[in-house]
Amino acid sequence: MDEPGPALEVTTRTSLRRKRERGHHDRAVIHAILDEGLVCHVGFSAEGTTTVLPFAYGRLGDTLYLHGAAANHMLRVLADGGAASITVTLVDGIVLARSAFHHSMNYRSVVLFGTAHRVEDPDEKRRALDAIVDHVTPGRSADARPPTTNEMRSTTVIGFPIEEGSAKIRTGGPIDDDEDLDLAIWAGQIPLVLAPGRPVPDEGLASSVSVPDYVAGYRRPGSPPAAVPPGREPVAGPGG
Amino acid sequence: MDEPGPALEVTTRTSLRRKRERGHHDRAVIHAILDEGLVCHVGFSAEGTTTVLPFAYGRLGDTLYLHGAAANHMLRVLADGGAASITVTLVDGIVLARSAFHHSMNYRSVVLFGTAHRVEDPDEKRRALDAIVDHVTPGRSADARPPTTNEMRSTTVIGFPIEEGSAKIRTGGPIDDDEDLDLAIWAGQIPLVLAPGRPVPDEGLASSVSVPDYVAGYRRPGSPPAAVPPGREPVAGPGG
Repeated sequence: MDEPGPALEVTTRTSLRRKRERGHHDRAVIHAILDEGLVCHVGFSAEGTTTVLPFAYGRLGDTLYLHGAAANHMLRVLADGGAASITVTLVDGIVLARSAFHHSMNYRSVVLFGTAHRVEDPDEKRRALDAIVDHVTPGRSADARPPTTNEMRSTTVIGFPIEEGSAKIRTGGPIDDDEDLDLAIWAGQIPLVLAPGRPVPDEGLASSVSVPDYVAGYRRPGSPPAAVPPGREPVAGPGG
Repeated sequence: MDEPGPALEVTTRTSLRRKRERGHHDRAVIHAILDEGLVCHVGFSAEGTTTVLPFAYGRLGDTLYLHGAAANHMLRVLADGGAASITVTLVDGIVLARSAFHHSMNYRSVVLFGTAHRVEDPDEKRRALDAIVDHVTPGRSADARPPTTNEMRSTTVIGFPIEEGSAKIRTGGPIDDDEDLDLAIWAGQIPLVLAPGRPVPDEGLASSVSVPDYVAGYRRPGSPPAAVPPGREPVAGPGG
């Protein structure tokens, strides 16, 4: 299932108009960005208003899954066949050029276009809910108390095709004009990473319940493991 | 200018339909989220398609500014009076409940609705560009080589009113059903923060150019300073 198929077809709205070298339509590239992201931004239009909302999600093959309460306005619009654009952005760093004009950011983003469908089949719905839990915290769905029939009923799940879309990637340092290169202005990159802190156990959690490995060693898929123990507190390094 | 005015008026599209306790219309709350965020997601509709794109931005008072090449499709649509929704989301952590159903995330988000205007006045345009540079890297605009007349001309800047919108905030641990509290399943939070790594100087930067404080001590406004030196490499702690 996770052997990516051929590249996405380039359409009028997914062909890059500018800086084409940053555009990608390969499924493997698109899947990797979707898998590392935590939140997607869903844009949809209803009653004359365009709205952008953040949502958790999961991916199985070429389908992105969103879920929420059955009463959720956006999910109802999408489940009823409303078109949407779903975007996932990873911010990798800040790029400081010598000139204000050439300042930039390093990022990886995916923009998808399509029409969602309501997931009715109970097996697909269950797999989709597991995929969302495991997307946010890889390995979690096997440990958590599974959804009951009532919980399943009160949850809407929609599937969104990963069929029309593109990725855009910027990497590397600043690209200054030649005549600015000798200016005595610091230039370079500040890398950024969404870093986990020390896990906080729930109040009332029995002390006999140990912290699972996937919590203690939490990281986004595709991101390198932290070389320092998680947490913002001062920590001793190898020599400490 | 940064003394926030009265709360935003609640409109049909900014009144929360569910979980109202998470909603906020106070300007100070909204400004703080916008100031800490790095990237906004802009949704707009044109030629029958809704599109969501990530953009850097800056804020001055009650206006959000975006910029880009004059040829940028989205900026042209917005500059020509197209309505948009602009959303900023800060992911603060993952919330693991004992039940899959009650898994959640801690986040702060702002969703805005409105119509942009093209910034024509050269003084406002220059202040807006400085605000964007300083939003991404506080303090940077005073150091960078300022934009030339040609660079200003090839840049489109749009202003977007912070007038209609709301913030949504979730904090705290999981909220499990009473009957699940005794399950031997780890529950709690994994905090997440967008953390800066060690700055990477541009190739060819003269070694006499020292790293500015705002680079060495980079952090998002509102976020606490890192207690450990930035960087993903192992670091020695106070005892190391």
